[in-house]
Amino acid sequence: MDGLARLRLARTEGVGHVMHGRLLARHGTPEAALEALGRRAFPRDAALREMEGLAALGAHLLFLGEEDYPPLLALLEDAPLVLAARGDLAAFGRRGVALVGARNASGTGRRFAEDLADALAVRDICVVSGLARGIDTAAHTGALRSGTTIAAVAGGLDRPYPRENAALQERIAAEGGLVLSEAPLGTAPLARHFPRRNRIVAGLSLGVVVIEAALQSGTLITARLAAEAGRELFAVPGHPLDPRSRGSNDLIRRGARLTETVEDILLHLPEAPAEAPLFRMPLLAELPEEPAEEPPPASDAAAQVIEMMGSTPIAVDELGRRCQLSAPRLSALLLELEMAGRIETLPGNRVALA
Amino acid sequence: MDGLARLRLARTEGVGHVMHGRLLARHGTPEAALEALGRRAFPRDAALREMEGLAALGAHLLFLGEEDYPPLLALLEDAPLVLAARGDLAAFGRRGVALVGARNASGTGRRFAEDLADALAVRDICVVSGLARGIDTAAHTGALRSGTTIAAVAGGLDRPYPRENAALQERIAAEGGLVLSEAPLGTAPLARHFPRRNRIVAGLSLGVVVIEAALQSGTLITARLAAEAGRELFAVPGHPLDPRSRGSNDLIRRGARLTETVEDILLHLPEAPAEAPLFRMPLLAELPEEPAEEPPPASDAAAQVIEMMGSTPIAVDELGRRCQLSAPRLSALLLELEMAGRIETLPGNRVALA
Repeated sequence: MDGLARLRLARTEGVGHVMHGRLLARHGTPEAALEALGRRAFPRDAALREMEGLAALGAHLLFLGEEDYPPLLALLEDAPLVLAARGDLAAFGRRGVALVGARNASGTGRRFAEDLADALAVRDICVVSGLARGIDTAAHTGALRSGTTIAAVAGGLDRPYPRENAALQERIAAEGGLVLSEAPLGTAPLARHFPRRNRIVAGLSLGVVVIEAALQSGTLITARLAAEAGRELFAVPGHPLDPRSRGSNDLIRRGARLTETVEDILLHLPEAPAEAPLFRMPLLAELPEEPAEEPPPASDAAAQVIEMMGSTPIAVDELGRRCQLSAPRLSALLLELEMAGRIETLPGNRVALA
Repeated sequence: MDGLARLRLARTEGVGHVMHGRLLARHGTPEAALEALGRRAFPRDAALREMEGLAALGAHLLFLGEEDYPPLLALLEDAPLVLAARGDLAAFGRRGVALVGARNASGTGRRFAEDLADALAVRDICVVSGLARGIDTAAHTGALRSGTTIAAVAGGLDRPYPRENAALQERIAAEGGLVLSEAPLGTAPLARHFPRRNRIVAGLSLGVVVIEAALQSGTLITARLAAEAGRELFAVPGHPLDPRSRGSNDLIRRGARLTETVEDILLHLPEAPAEAPLFRMPLLAELPEEPAEEPPPASDAAAQVIEMMGSTPIAVDELGRRCQLSAPRLSALLLELEMAGRIETLPGNRVALA
């Protein structure tokens, strides 16, 4: 089956960008590389199952270096070796602009994002975002009013997250847009996948527009990745007393373009990424670091947390005392378990098994 | 009486900055210059009356070129020849920072201005503003919590405007601050006095902080004057959907320092004004022009408007129809009449004779 060997090679544990290049250089073809890897290679059966699953979804596989791979994304040093894509690949032909921002965005912020996305789509620009709650959702929704949008998701294409956006994901794929994922089918979106998803959002775009981002937010990771990749950075200002504007105001202070209307973007959107980062890097070092791609396995602690939870809701504070975990550690675990669909968060800072 | 000749010379019609310098250069002393001017000179009696009135108020006269004149203001090309001052001249010894903004400021904007002024005052900075409604009032009030403030007013020192700020003006003069005016006693504040007042606000300050300013607002005139005089420009951002932030966001786009906290000001406040404008002038040309200092006399039209108003309130729309005046022309006239205390504005867009 076409692409099977490339998929197996890309999915093989420990084969990253550098190793992939070395293997191909040494062995000539993916097939020969796989043969050299022997039993370490990703299993043929699993790859076949994935390809069948993708075919059932009507999805394509895009391999780095092949013609249909998005050219801007290919410029990244750590471009994904493989992407699963559902929808219309013609979306790659349009200039991409990412709209990113807080999940807990204000109503004003969401309305602004929706209208800005619409205005960009009217001008034949493809709006890129991450299908998250808040600004992402507003951006995709606004863009679909008049044009195209690309959603890069953190989990497998068959695991829409958040669940409430499953219908939006379907709409994007059906209405001329694209849904992209680097993760194999069946992958539940875990915290560590999100910075990887963010680099795809940035990589697909000539410019990234930050709308409502707190300091130390994931949105600023996307901004940093975009700047490092020579993409233009835009930020929507807000009042200093609104904590949701701290991140975007700070970006403006560091050199991002103050953005009030679509004209501010059109005026400064380049035809191609810059060779060097447009952003002043020494200052950027103060931005939050991308979390390590492979954190130490959390399974023991996570299992302990699950064990301590009964069928009835429990207060997070109480759970922390039972598990003897620090508050930040516990909330990281709870976030991961929630993303994996194992638990759900309830009002009053309580949690329960899903 | 000390200063009488200087006051008469400064108040003489047609004696501006250039003429004043020429007269002194040619005749040596103010007294000799007055003699040369003959009957064209400002009347001795009127000047004496003004000095008596100022003495009764406990006010001082400050003449350009003398020791007690504020040194930063003296740097302006068109520095006032004379200033009447009530309060403590020691306020000139502190670094000055102007806080300016919309009269119809939001509650958030006023709270922000008050707290920022307080924070500046705590750091021994003298907060300068124009005693107007909204941001100006909040700035003076906040500064008085912990320190000193200077109010530059548009009319005579005995004509507080707006009237509701008469008590605040007294407080400023009594609590270690200063109230300054270029206008003779008895002068009602007219629209054309405000840009002149604004240049004094800018001239007294090392930096000007713009909080909530619409495009085409008087606040932006102060910003332009400050930039032209080499003063640092700070602007507080706001959401694009809030029209009260358009002006300040635009200033940030043009190069003003994005300001969220007092630290943003302290970090960039210079020890002395810059030799050349800090602001990019080509762009500034797009900012609203300072209104001509001497607009064509409005008295005929104003008299007509007054005539059309009876003792009972009248809707502004109806008044416009009766007077056959355009809406902008009418509202300019009404503003001037209101400032002169001839009419008052009532709810429901109605006006009445005061």
